[in-house]
Amino acid sequence: MAKVSISPEGVKYALPDEKAGKEEIKILDEITAEQTQLGRKVVAIQGLGFVGAVMAEVVADSTDSQGKPIYFVHGVQRPSTRSYWKVPVINKGESPIEATDPEVAEIFPRIVKEKKTLRATWSSYAFSLADIIVVDIQLDATKPVFGDAAKGYCDTGAFEKAIADLGRNIKPDALVLVETTVPPGTCQHIVKPILEKEFKARGIDISKNPPRIAHSYERVMPGRNYVSSIRNFWRTYSGIDEESAKIAQEFLTNVLDTKEYPLYRLNNTNASELSKTFENSFRATNIALVYEWTLFAEEVGINLFEVVKSIRVRPTHKNLMNPGFGVGGYCLTKDPVLAHWASLNVFKRKKGLEMAVEAVNINDLMPLHSLRLTKSALGGTVSGKHIHLLGASYLSDVGDTRHSPSEIFWKAAVKEGASLSVHDPLVKVWPEIPEAKVEKDLLGSLKNKDALIFAVGHKEYLGLDPEKVVEAAGKPLAVIDTQNLLTDGEIKKYLNLGCKVKGVGKGHIETLRRER
Amino acid sequence: MAKVSISPEGVKYALPDEKAGKEEIKILDEITAEQTQLGRKVVAIQGLGFVGAVMAEVVADSTDSQGKPIYFVHGVQRPSTRSYWKVPVINKGESPIEATDPEVAEIFPRIVKEKKTLRATWSSYAFSLADIIVVDIQLDATKPVFGDAAKGYCDTGAFEKAIADLGRNIKPDALVLVETTVPPGTCQHIVKPILEKEFKARGIDISKNPPRIAHSYERVMPGRNYVSSIRNFWRTYSGIDEESAKIAQEFLTNVLDTKEYPLYRLNNTNASELSKTFENSFRATNIALVYEWTLFAEEVGINLFEVVKSIRVRPTHKNLMNPGFGVGGYCLTKDPVLAHWASLNVFKRKKGLEMAVEAVNINDLMPLHSLRLTKSALGGTVSGKHIHLLGASYLSDVGDTRHSPSEIFWKAAVKEGASLSVHDPLVKVWPEIPEAKVEKDLLGSLKNKDALIFAVGHKEYLGLDPEKVVEAAGKPLAVIDTQNLLTDGEIKKYLNLGCKVKGVGKGHIETLRRER
Repeated sequence: MAKVSISPEGVKYALPDEKAGKEEIKILDEITAEQTQLGRKVVAIQGLGFVGAVMAEVVADSTDSQGKPIYFVHGVQRPSTRSYWKVPVINKGESPIEATDPEVAEIFPRIVKEKKTLRATWSSYAFSLADIIVVDIQLDATKPVFGDAAKGYCDTGAFEKAIADLGRNIKPDALVLVETTVPPGTCQHIVKPILEKEFKARGIDISKNPPRIAHSYERVMPGRNYVSSIRNFWRTYSGIDEESAKIAQEFLTNVLDTKEYPLYRLNNTNASELSKTFENSFRATNIALVYEWTLFAEEVGINLFEVVKSIRVRPTHKNLMNPGFGVGGYCLTKDPVLAHWASLNVFKRKKGLEMAVEAVNINDLMPLHSLRLTKSALGGTVSGKHIHLLGASYLSDVGDTRHSPSEIFWKAAVKEGASLSVHDPLVKVWPEIPEAKVEKDLLGSLKNKDALIFAVGHKEYLGLDPEKVVEAAGKPLAVIDTQNLLTDGEIKKYLNLGCKVKGVGKGHIETLRRER
Repeated sequence: MAKVSISPEGVKYALPDEKAGKEEIKILDEITAEQTQLGRKVVAIQGLGFVGAVMAEVVADSTDSQGKPIYFVHGVQRPSTRSYWKVPVINKGESPIEATDPEVAEIFPRIVKEKKTLRATWSSYAFSLADIIVVDIQLDATKPVFGDAAKGYCDTGAFEKAIADLGRNIKPDALVLVETTVPPGTCQHIVKPILEKEFKARGIDISKNPPRIAHSYERVMPGRNYVSSIRNFWRTYSGIDEESAKIAQEFLTNVLDTKEYPLYRLNNTNASELSKTFENSFRATNIALVYEWTLFAEEVGINLFEVVKSIRVRPTHKNLMNPGFGVGGYCLTKDPVLAHWASLNVFKRKKGLEMAVEAVNINDLMPLHSLRLTKSALGGTVSGKHIHLLGASYLSDVGDTRHSPSEIFWKAAVKEGASLSVHDPLVKVWPEIPEAKVEKDLLGSLKNKDALIFAVGHKEYLGLDPEKVVEAAGKPLAVIDTQNLLTDGEIKKYLNLGCKVKGVGKGHIETLRRER
């Protein structure tokens, strides 16, 4: 039986066989010849995930001053059971990504059906046809010990294989533009030697044809401005040599709004790779710092959200973070670890990025604080209790569940004997917790719950009537506000209804209890 | 022989005796009666240091909508040998503070000689005449072990005595407005009990006349906008009770530009006290984070200043800090310690503010990194070498030397056998290093130096001609740029002149050496 790849909608797609491979090559040759005749340059995008799929849209949708498409894009996705389905789905003009930004779904039919500037393929042969290859494959950090991110590492094996695949296929003068967030040093110490090795094996004289490599990192924010966060935002780039930098600069200028958001060139690829991880380490550290002040505020009766608001009036302090449930997503949870690992392993330094990595630990462990608040509201234990999470994703009004604090909370609470359930208006399935059924009926799913955790700041959770909540639960319950979703008035109502209320960073709840 | 207090100009003032004390009371009574008749409210400002002196100016200079003065100010300074001189100096209409902001010196003659809304005194009797007492006395953190700020503590003894002095003197309905940066919890757990005790001793019924206490922290920045940083900047305030908050709000609205910079009220004094230390801990932590990336950048050949510049284009990352020499001044070096100490000692928590305090450690030790760079540029040792510091203050274009990184560098280098000298255009004497003669001839003071440290970013140090520097030294010397004052072109010139050049966060210097 042929292997299949199943889309989130449940449609099964058989993986291509050897015969399909030969046909695909013919198709790729034909379409590339056609597109070249139209005067379009050919781009291949390697990896159609959260960044690659939207980057493919932006590149294929870009036009010159006359409104004519500049590039034809081969979107290349490996034919794995996990991801192959994206190829047929995209080629139908559909988006492989569920997104709150309507533009994500709008652009695919336009570029696939109308402009015909994008075609998805699973064949590496596409790389041989491209002038520019944009690398958007995943490169994860593995954190083998929860709460000890310094032990984290980056397994570059699959990444190295993907780069070797490029080395065997690409034209010697094609530019490899790495957009993946990589450990600092990757372009120079990993990508370059691999491409050189493969070039040599193909008989290419690398002294005349050194591989062209550039790095430019995205600052994607899933959410309402997903596409815009790629196209209309500042970019930093760098080249392994002057020629590579020049081609990267031209390409980025063609596809991004560099008039409003000028490009920033850094001197070498190490610098721009470091820049990305530094940027996110800054954010992660700021969040981690707030945590210790959150505990302080809770214990001494202070509403830290008000304090943060008061400090944020200073222009230099506008980005002070709020207390919260934890840190999720793909970047802040791993980028400091990539840099730390690179420091020790790529550059063989004795020191890592200890403070940044400690920030990751603090943030990873943060959801356990909300679990402690839950326990305390439930009289000391969650064992045998029914706990309902409002929100599975890692960000307000976004359906992305990767590394969400809700996942950490869920697993820890289950380990302590609690029975968990979850509601999220934006999440269909929760891949990280397959046993979780994501409820869609906000009040209906509350029946018989002992505790309600406001875990994510989705707008659906604002202004819920405490009376209706308690009525839906059928009894007073523990209410844990991790996102400052409850007003003081609502907290008093919950208290008056016999609920126990706790809030992350909301030490003033004790005062409200006395005042009501 | 009578004790004397000597001004920075070297003028000796005899400390007042008992007889003078009696006369002073008469004068204070008379002047207060006069001023009250003019319809002015009476304010006393306790402590005429870096904040109190300028706050006294702002209050005494404030006017109502008709341009009439609202307040008469008694500026109260204890008659100590160290500080008494401020009283006669101010009463001559002169500023006790050396400042780059011309407004500091301009306001004193206006309010002392023309408007006659400020008079300095050394007599606590002034407190008994005031409607509002603004507390601006120092409250330091002591860090007994260099590099172990967690062992830091706050000796509140002198502060408590000063508050008791108020308790013995003030009118029962006067407001005590604490402006000093204090350990969180101070107003509630220290000021209030002391005032209550002194009130009781005076037979005041504290159930009818509870002491009125408010807290509002300044955000003073010494420098070109010194006065403005008090008068035209956002303020947070809080009251120990509703009445105290109301009086504080009215007072602050009268003296500050609260139209452009609205007041922010927090619910209780703990919250606003915490807010100040949190705000500065945020800043201190951001600086500390950059340090580990500075070392990384230096070792792998990256110019981190360029990286920071590239990241700062993001509006959310505008306050990412640059690499540097260290952290000085009165706030960032101590405020995290105050909060940490208060957490453990005022609130008896088991946890402190570990991350904030670790940031203080990293920052305190930072100048030793520049010393290591110096050593390396000098072939491994500074012993017997002549090292010249450009800058003694803690901030560019400011003459304030409190807790400056130059002080830490100086002491550490001397301990290792170096011979130190210093130039600073804005510092007359360096109280922390009395043996240092602060040179004023920039090139002249370079003669025979082995190393030149660009320690502070004073504008005088920009654009120095490398040829002239080497000529003035009489030989090629080690040049250490801790402030990114040197352009790449200048660095190449120094290298071509035979100098060794190192720079904090400037890992690309090695590349420049190869390129030139």
